[in-house]
Amino acid sequence: MDIERLKKQIDFILEADNEKKIFRQTHITGNSRYENDAEHAWHMAIMVYLLKEYSNKEIDVAKTMLMALIHDIVEIDAGDTYAYDEEAVKSQQEREKKAADRIFNLLPVDQAKELRVIFDECEENNTAEANFAHAMDNFQPLLLNNSNDGNDWKEHCVKKSQVMKRQEKSKLGSNFIWEYSKKLIDENFEKGNLKDE
Amino acid sequence: MDIERLKKQIDFILEADNEKKIFRQTHITGNSRYENDAEHAWHMAIMVYLLKEYSNKEIDVAKTMLMALIHDIVEIDAGDTYAYDEEAVKSQQEREKKAADRIFNLLPVDQAKELRVIFDECEENNTAEANFAHAMDNFQPLLLNNSNDGNDWKEHCVKKSQVMKRQEKSKLGSNFIWEYSKKLIDENFEKGNLKDE
Repeated sequence: MDIERLKKQIDFILEADNEKKIFRQTHITGNSRYENDAEHAWHMAIMVYLLKEYSNKEIDVAKTMLMALIHDIVEIDAGDTYAYDEEAVKSQQEREKKAADRIFNLLPVDQAKELRVIFDECEENNTAEANFAHAMDNFQPLLLNNSNDGNDWKEHCVKKSQVMKRQEKSKLGSNFIWEYSKKLIDENFEKGNLKDE
Repeated sequence: MDIERLKKQIDFILEADNEKKIFRQTHITGNSRYENDAEHAWHMAIMVYLLKEYSNKEIDVAKTMLMALIHDIVEIDAGDTYAYDEEAVKSQQEREKKAADRIFNLLPVDQAKELRVIFDECEENNTAEANFAHAMDNFQPLLLNNSNDGNDWKEHCVKKSQVMKRQEKSKLGSNFIWEYSKKLIDENFEKGNLKDE
């Protein structure tokens, strides 16, 4: 039994638990409270599986699910950066790189490298898997927010153009999901849930 | 665009969101609050990936991760059944079957069948994948509870024999994890966190 190896894996598993304490700007359905990173990642991983048929390119589903599960782990140190907070977005990359250096290195060396490669691939967004993971990362809060009558946008006075700019990147992963997302955005704009310029 | 198919998938995705509202008897690290089903499933799916080398038999990792992600979805209707509540355990199977019939059937027929097969396989616990998923389902709260100095056991006056009986099933999936689990249980018994008979 290589107990030392298992102990490193457990250190990482217990550190990851802290994602349950990082809250996003999105409310869960019913609008009762903010969603945390662990719940978001779980939801996203299920969506990767269920909606994989809409990926523009064939994807390695297991890898994309794992990507979804770990993509926000750096927020344990770096915090959640609200997509429409321009100041916070500027320092996001540096804060998150430092966090990745610390957190993945809790694992045994081989697994630290393996997960970091998948994490970095997601960040760089240049592969079919990363493109589809990003599409799900956009579509998941869009669905929640739409189910809550656009509450999160109303609360932050978000403009339609801001949502379009963010969601448009979904088309790299899925034209189909992007088309449907546009429809939801238009409906919310019509209802006054999203601001004009 | 087959919008009707996507709408069924979205109905399921939004229904699944309710798992975030089902609370377990386990506290997250730091003991600040109870854990919910979505967070637990997320944690368990990551553990499947990280600890797969300890499975007694070779497993289909993607399938086992998906099993972990959806294994508690029936609790949306059936509620969380505390493993040491003998009365609730008696009616658990029937309540959960009814919930599975409703929830999976929100999906398009092909996906409803596919997910139900994986869910039932997990319940029946007769394959390498189900055995390992169950081992992770046991090990995850054991790690959290151990990190919180056995608080959940102390609160419910749980006996060592009860924990042993539940955790022992982990050996079907992983002898290694079961050996380590025994060590943690013994340590908690020594500290008085688990009761004698």
